[in-house]
Amino acid sequence: MVVVMSPEATEEDIERVVSRVEDVGGEAFVSRGKVRTIIGLVGDIESFHHLNLRTFAGVADVHRISDPFKLVSRQHHPARSTVWIGPKGNQVPIGPDSFTFIAGPCAVESAEQTVEAARMAQSAGATILRGGAYKPRTSPYAFQGLGKRGLEILASVREATGMPIVTEVVDARDVPAVAEHADLLQIGTRNMANFGLLQAVGEAGKPVLLKRGMSATIEEWLMAAEYVAQRGNLDIVLCERGIRTFEPATRNTLDISAVPVAQATTHLPVIVDPSHAAGRKDLVVPLSRAAIAVGADGVIVDVHPQPETALCDGPQALLGTELRDLAKAVRQLPPALGRVDSSSLARKG
Amino acid sequence: MVVVMSPEATEEDIERVVSRVEDVGGEAFVSRGKVRTIIGLVGDIESFHHLNLRTFAGVADVHRISDPFKLVSRQHHPARSTVWIGPKGNQVPIGPDSFTFIAGPCAVESAEQTVEAARMAQSAGATILRGGAYKPRTSPYAFQGLGKRGLEILASVREATGMPIVTEVVDARDVPAVAEHADLLQIGTRNMANFGLLQAVGEAGKPVLLKRGMSATIEEWLMAAEYVAQRGNLDIVLCERGIRTFEPATRNTLDISAVPVAQATTHLPVIVDPSHAAGRKDLVVPLSRAAIAVGADGVIVDVHPQPETALCDGPQALLGTELRDLAKAVRQLPPALGRVDSSSLARKG
Amino acid sequence: MVVVMSPEATEEDIERVVSRVEDVGGEAFVSRGKVRTIIGLVGDIESFHHLNLRTFAGVADVHRISDPFKLVSRQHHPARSTVWIGPKGNQVPIGPDSFTFIAGPCAVESAEQTVEAARMAQSAGATILRGGAYKPRTSPYAFQGLGKRGLEILASVREATGMPIVTEVVDARDVPAVAEHADLLQIGTRNMANFGLLQAVGEAGKPVLLKRGMSATIEEWLMAAEYVAQRGNLDIVLCERGIRTFEPATRNTLDISAVPVAQATTHLPVIVDPSHAAGRKDLVVPLSRAAIAVGADGVIVDVHPQPETALCDGPQALLGTELRDLAKAVRQLPPALGRVDSSSLARKG
Amino acid sequence: MVVVMSPEATEEDIERVVSRVEDVGGEAFVSRGKVRTIIGLVGDIESFHHLNLRTFAGVADVHRISDPFKLVSRQHHPARSTVWIGPKGNQVPIGPDSFTFIAGPCAVESAEQTVEAARMAQSAGATILRGGAYKPRTSPYAFQGLGKRGLEILASVREATGMPIVTEVVDARDVPAVAEHADLLQIGTRNMANFGLLQAVGEAGKPVLLKRGMSATIEEWLMAAEYVAQRGNLDIVLCERGIRTFEPATRNTLDISAVPVAQATTHLPVIVDPSHAAGRKDLVVPLSRAAIAVGADGVIVDVHPQPETALCDGPQALLGTELRDLAKAVRQLPPALGRVDSSSLARKG
Repeated sequence: MVVVMSPEATEEDIERVVSRVEDVGGEAFVSRGKVRTIIGLVGDIESFHHLNLRTFAGVADVHRISDPFKLVSRQHHPARSTVWIGPKGNQVPIGPDSFTFIAGPCAVESAEQTVEAARMAQSAGATILRGGAYKPRTSPYAFQGLGKRGLEILASVREATGMPIVTEVVDARDVPAVAEHADLLQIGTRNMANFGLLQAVGEAGKPVLLKRGMSATIEEWLMAAEYVAQRGNLDIVLCERGIRTFEPATRNTLDISAVPVAQATTHLPVIVDPSHAAGRKDLVVPLSRAAIAVGADGVIVDVHPQPETALCDGPQALLGTELRDLAKAVRQLPPALGRVDSSSLARKG
Repeated sequence: MVVVMSPEATEEDIERVVSRVEDVGGEAFVSRGKVRTIIGLVGDIESFHHLNLRTFAGVADVHRISDPFKLVSRQHHPARSTVWIGPKGNQVPIGPDSFTFIAGPCAVESAEQTVEAARMAQSAGATILRGGAYKPRTSPYAFQGLGKRGLEILASVREATGMPIVTEVVDARDVPAVAEHADLLQIGTRNMANFGLLQAVGEAGKPVLLKRGMSATIEEWLMAAEYVAQRGNLDIVLCERGIRTFEPATRNTLDISAVPVAQATTHLPVIVDPSHAAGRKDLVVPLSRAAIAVGADGVIVDVHPQPETALCDGPQALLGTELRDLAKAVRQLPPALGRVDSSSLARKG
Repeated sequence: MVVVMSPEATEEDIERVVSRVEDVGGEAFVSRGKVRTIIGLVGDIESFHHLNLRTFAGVADVHRISDPFKLVSRQHHPARSTVWIGPKGNQVPIGPDSFTFIAGPCAVESAEQTVEAARMAQSAGATILRGGAYKPRTSPYAFQGLGKRGLEILASVREATGMPIVTEVVDARDVPAVAEHADLLQIGTRNMANFGLLQAVGEAGKPVLLKRGMSATIEEWLMAAEYVAQRGNLDIVLCERGIRTFEPATRNTLDISAVPVAQATTHLPVIVDPSHAAGRKDLVVPLSRAAIAVGADGVIVDVHPQPETALCDGPQALLGTELRDLAKAVRQLPPALGRVDSSSLARKG
Repeated sequence: MVVVMSPEATEEDIERVVSRVEDVGGEAFVSRGKVRTIIGLVGDIESFHHLNLRTFAGVADVHRISDPFKLVSRQHHPARSTVWIGPKGNQVPIGPDSFTFIAGPCAVESAEQTVEAARMAQSAGATILRGGAYKPRTSPYAFQGLGKRGLEILASVREATGMPIVTEVVDARDVPAVAEHADLLQIGTRNMANFGLLQAVGEAGKPVLLKRGMSATIEEWLMAAEYVAQRGNLDIVLCERGIRTFEPATRNTLDISAVPVAQATTHLPVIVDPSHAAGRKDLVVPLSRAAIAVGADGVIVDVHPQPETALCDGPQALLGTELRDLAKAVRQLPPALGRVDSSSLARKG
């Protein structure tokens, strides 16, 4: 931590900072410039935070220097992690050696629609099924998901297809029910900073898919992962899904750079959701290609057997030609970049 | 709703749209241009949404025209509302006729600190006390609030000072406890789209202070209010607290225009939080003045008897000179703009 | 300047930084932490910049600490400046003691329209006339302004009304012609980083109104002012006119905090343009009130005798009731905040 | 164009809109809903713009429906264009069939540095040389480029290497000199809306590389291209180089979606600048891969023989390993996606 004194700071102001830092067990190195003095702090960052140095007389600014997260940081865990999804005997990896394709309908509407979407996804090469049972919707008048009935449908489709299931949980009270049926618990973009929910999934005993908040910095996203990790769960997969900007042509702006930036900072795997980023199905294939090429560990994509009757996000669901193009990209590009298909590494009973 | 056909749309594409709209009971007016055809839809918007018209062949775009919210809209309720805060016999208004000054510490740390902050706030003219018992913090290693003990302290300070209490609730499971002690339930910026929590406070029987999400559009903010209203609670106060932009000089960018924009669209009162918007105490007084002048129905401000020992947001808490300046502004400016102090309208037992 | 070394930096990496800093005449103070070492640099910042320390082995980050601007900084010039606008014998101030109201049509369309708008502005209390002769337009097919003919009209209206003139210059080649007729040369938001144009107006011998770029940080805006100042012209007025954000309800988001932030950093006066910030005339009066209350040194507003025939930005031009409301605010609020009307300080022949 | 009337609009208000539209030769189709009436306009958009319908009594909103650009639109020119760069007998294509790699130093510092950088670029597979002679810099105290001397160096390096040259022009007065020496005239991000400069390069008889403004929407970017096109020059290459967002980890946020969005809207080629987008050299290779995969027609990258002595943007310049990685990506990925190297299509004398 570095404390920057203002040009008007007195010698007493400087000494006050030094002595408070030493009080809490830290060391303070004073560098006196012509215009300003700066003070470098060495020791326990948390204890320095509690000093509220910014409120001290003569202090102009305080710069943090180290990463604020610990368990998810790559600093103490340089090797990138693989998270295994699915019940024992049927586990699919998400990590640095493979490329994992996750697909399914935005919302579970019925058993028929879900199994049909799962078959579509599976023939295109997907190894994990996505599907929403609890849907966070901007309007209280929009379809809110089938709830527990949706979870049961997903579980039965896993039986039928062998695909592990990822589904969103939006309320801490629902975590036990969702954790009973799902293999990967999704925290959606609106709940990235719902800390009670993060703690609840941290204790649920299942891997977590943590979407980036639509206006969260990468650092805040990793801090949210730290909330999960702090409860003893390091099976966390990060998902970049677009950030909010001024550009209206896409629903969000896919921050493709976030993938290598996050991978350089955390050991956790990072995947991309091009469907929710763009909100337009014509962009899903090119953005999936970009995700593979930039080094993402997987993609998660909306597919629906009949987008025009979808109860949620129909305009971004793939079918027909686009899905074939995506299947081809997922088959061809990762090997060109040194990755294998996730199914070839799956741990089958 | 207006459907814009693409230049290549065929006559069949146009007829398909018209016939599906008529199927769900709507009317479709076709305007044929030289390059494009546009179709105006009249009828029930929700039923049109379910058609997923954007996925139809030949459809280039769909424009929504009406507001998506109903209960909170000013369209059906032109008069601006007043929300009354506090127990019977001790109620303070927030609404178009008065200006309400809310102040207190960011976090409740102890009974002494809270009562001292409340006295400071009260002498400066505040009529409602703010104070956090449950704190949503970016880092899991930061102080998370005193929880129930904090609520009890707040209740005892209400006894001592007569000031109604506003405090944040961050988890639907805590709503009953918070609603038992608090007079106004605050939904923080991170939880604006936590729909389960919105529904829970909508049923709690107490007024709600709904902060704008830091990256929420004004329309999304009003949709969040609609979630609360839909559960039967129209005692909602909106609070603009800054949005996330590229500018680093302030923690957030106070969107001062949001006050008149929201007031033109909804009948609910709108207040401003300059402390969390700026994150710097030197801006709290000028931004409070701006809030009064733009027509806000109140401000909510951090004060702390000793900012340098504050466990939360010390750098933005006011004391001494600044608080006196703010007190003066709150006393002088609202009358110049046709408003009275909230205390003069309070309904005292 | 502070250099943060990465945890893996070697002793040689640290010495390389120290020795290069000393080579260019600086001093380097090394603070060794448990995890990282940080190095505080004292001396000439420009020479440190040329070292490209970020490219050195073992360097994780470099933090700048001092302001990068000099001439416009308040650090070496604590008193806030007043800029005088107009020919000798008819000068209107913009500065900390007065409040200056500038108004006029977005574009000069004809002598009649301009003189009529000027009369409207003057009766509402405006002391400087705005009007565009050269218009930067997003579309090449939109009205681009009357050019030199527009300048002549403006000059004749100054004759008729006694109001000094502010008008935009968009091309360095036009600076001599514009400087011949105008009293205040406006640099528009799109040209804030057109450095050749900034240098040209810096040499033109007339005061400059520098609008903030719609995506410029406050620091970049002051650096643009530094470009003008560096050519010997310190008669610069800054104008906040809204920044680009995700919020679609207003054309731009007025960054009202930018006024006190800029005033704390530079000695130059700062005014606000609520018309272009909002793009909606119903917001011009409340935003002007907010600008006065936050401490702005003036406002610049669009008025037009017949907005419905305006060739540019008709939807934001005031007339009738709104202009009367604005006139009232400009008359009443500044005195309540310790400022006088600019006309009472004008230096008349 | 669609005019949305407010719920309170009277029959007269509706008739006024209809009659003014008909006055200018358009047709108006009225759709009367239960709450609102909407009016579809058919005819010449420009003439409707001049009506300022938004200022009419009873009008709530006006939606534009067609693209505002014409010459650069794909609507009237469905086939994607190829732009040829270089003197007759030595022309390199940028277009849909090839992938073009442009590289060179951010700034031309000397003949030696430039030729060395060009050789590096060429061995890595680059076919066009970039290099700045006129540099727009945020600070007036930073290196501003060698000007004409820089142009001469670039021309001599073209002689030596056979690589066509792209260089930035920042002032309309310099266009003739730059056009004399360069093969592709670059308009930088800060000048995207410098309309006089756009018109000047539109008349200069050389192809133009138009960078996206850092806060420009894709539509505004295409409108800027329309300014160039309108002067008779359709040899325009668009360049996405990152937009300004709240994320601080990268200098800008590369809007990778802008590539397919722009390619769907305009027939012009679109390339990507990963160096200026990220501002960090560790991201240049992954972002270049993403650009290739998303379908960009080329990349433009900073290389420097000695980044640590670079006078401009050293931290983002590639050398050694990274450049080899990039060379490999440029060689291998485009063929996997159906494109050939630009050199194999070059038109050599």
